[in-house]
Amino acid sequence: MFATMIHGAGDIRWEEIPDPQLHEPTDVIVRVTASCVCGSDLWHYNGVVPHRGGPRTIGHECLGEVVEVGAEVRRFAVGDLVIVPFDHSDGTCVHCLAGQQQACVHLGFTVSGQSEFARVTQADGSLVRIGRVGEEPDSELIPSLLTLSDVFPTGWHAAVSAGVAPGSTAVVVGDGAVGLCGVLAARTLGAERIIALSRHESRQELAREFGATDVVAERGDAAVEAVMELTGGVGADSVLECVGSSQALETAFRSARPGARVGFVGVPNAVDAFPIRVAFSRNVGLAGGMAPVSRYLPELLPLVLDRVVDPGRVFDLEVPISDAASGYRAMAERRAIKAFLRV
Amino acid sequence: MFATMIHGAGDIRWEEIPDPQLHEPTDVIVRVTASCVCGSDLWHYNGVVPHRGGPRTIGHECLGEVVEVGAEVRRFAVGDLVIVPFDHSDGTCVHCLAGQQQACVHLGFTVSGQSEFARVTQADGSLVRIGRVGEEPDSELIPSLLTLSDVFPTGWHAAVSAGVAPGSTAVVVGDGAVGLCGVLAARTLGAERIIALSRHESRQELAREFGATDVVAERGDAAVEAVMELTGGVGADSVLECVGSSQALETAFRSARPGARVGFVGVPNAVDAFPIRVAFSRNVGLAGGMAPVSRYLPELLPLVLDRVVDPGRVFDLEVPISDAASGYRAMAERRAIKAFLRV
Repeated sequence: MFATMIHGAGDIRWEEIPDPQLHEPTDVIVRVTASCVCGSDLWHYNGVVPHRGGPRTIGHECLGEVVEVGAEVRRFAVGDLVIVPFDHSDGTCVHCLAGQQQACVHLGFTVSGQSEFARVTQADGSLVRIGRVGEEPDSELIPSLLTLSDVFPTGWHAAVSAGVAPGSTAVVVGDGAVGLCGVLAARTLGAERIIALSRHESRQELAREFGATDVVAERGDAAVEAVMELTGGVGADSVLECVGSSQALETAFRSARPGARVGFVGVPNAVDAFPIRVAFSRNVGLAGGMAPVSRYLPELLPLVLDRVVDPGRVFDLEVPISDAASGYRAMAERRAIKAFLRV
Repeated sequence: MFATMIHGAGDIRWEEIPDPQLHEPTDVIVRVTASCVCGSDLWHYNGVVPHRGGPRTIGHECLGEVVEVGAEVRRFAVGDLVIVPFDHSDGTCVHCLAGQQQACVHLGFTVSGQSEFARVTQADGSLVRIGRVGEEPDSELIPSLLTLSDVFPTGWHAAVSAGVAPGSTAVVVGDGAVGLCGVLAARTLGAERIIALSRHESRQELAREFGATDVVAERGDAAVEAVMELTGGVGADSVLECVGSSQALETAFRSARPGARVGFVGVPNAVDAFPIRVAFSRNVGLAGGMAPVSRYLPELLPLVLDRVVDPGRVFDLEVPISDAASGYRAMAERRAIKAFLRV
């Protein structure tokens, strides 16, 4: 197959490699029908996470058509159109049953989501059917359905972890696609006031359309001051940390009211300091982490199908999957929020 | 008055200094009637927190007799016998009303709790009456009443923050007086299984008497392995971190089951690394911090008065307050769990 490969920082190529194979009887192979670039892919592209070893496939968000099924797969058949959660889980272990699919004892990940084909482990526990070949979902729904693979459930997880409740005030740190999905999640969960931290005009605009009531363009101390002013000196009931850096965590903890929680979902690749003293003195908690995508899909899929939410609007660039490299470049240069890869 | 003064690491003296004075109309002065040494005092005694400036008073846990009241104090009068929470709060601000007294906008602290007299700010919001001169509480209750000033509510806060629920499994990291109170709190809150990490025989024994069902003497990786073995590989529903060091946090996070919370109450003076990646991948949260003592006293005082709990058993050494130095020494050398200072 052809696959998007990363050879090192800044070096993304579309190359021919062997097709993925079924390894376990619980695997399926999907033909990727839509894909995209994740902010966490940029950690590798930017070299923040050093590239080690040879070239490898990249990408973990996709929709697909099941083309091969392992012998023990019961719920899916060739021809099914599916959402592929980036984290694969069996749905039956002690952690899955507790809603902690990101810690499944058979945890797996999509590793060639920006390629022609991808292997999905634990298919029965992971995949969600959205149609059959010949019974495709409405094409205008595809971008939003694609966000259910990772970015929207991840923003949702930030909001749930932060304890967003009806009538509350939420702060969202990070204006990438996850942060914007966090704004949309906070609105959907009933937050009355949503303060988005963003200094990019197009992102501010989408944040407002997704439900942000206030936008703070400042960063660091000035951002915290602005949040405190907007909340009458009290701080926010919930804070969504959607970056994964020390500065973002610091801003998040200092923006929270005492007793509040920071819901964090940014992969903590740039975290070398943690605001433990702010957490201690103000009793600001931390919750969240990698999103248990499968836990949320039964709730989120109807919101998309019923057009209650339209998280697919985070895609402001579309390129052919064979040119994923230009999507990476545009996102790294912050010219695009999130690149949709057309198959 | 005479006061316990710290002159530097390892240098504790009983010296004469000026009496504390009322500064604000919401202050009272108490004559200290019982006091003790806190594990957090040892941070200063051990030099982990460097001593800066000249000698100063130390100690923040005490019972007292009100001897002077500010003009705006309504609820207390000269002659009242009181529990003095180490953190003073007005009880009326936005944070106090939300149960976050540790972040009161008028937050104050007891600073001469190991002396003859102490000033208490925000008396009306902070103090709890336990008698009058001539109507003293049963003398055998004094040690347990004294623990309500800090150590028992702090252990309780760890358990509440960690989400200890009836039938659950809790791990307690730290076998100091706070950790032991955490064991007692977890039992009182209904934990079915309580795994105490301790390698000191006398502390193991008290942990068992307080409700620990299992004791793990190992530390670090070996402790985590032992907890995992005891919990069938799942991890604990709740973890109480009662130390305040990087190693304790690491052990706590790795002992927790996915989705669980670490309730932390150890002053994080020895935290230079935070297990953010464990938190992220396993979705283990953090909650707690400095205890809002006043929030818990309405619940905890009856437990002590009705002899449901006996947290005063953490005192295994009694010395005259004028010889607090020997209490510090015994605790620093781990010959004593916690020193009661007799007035």
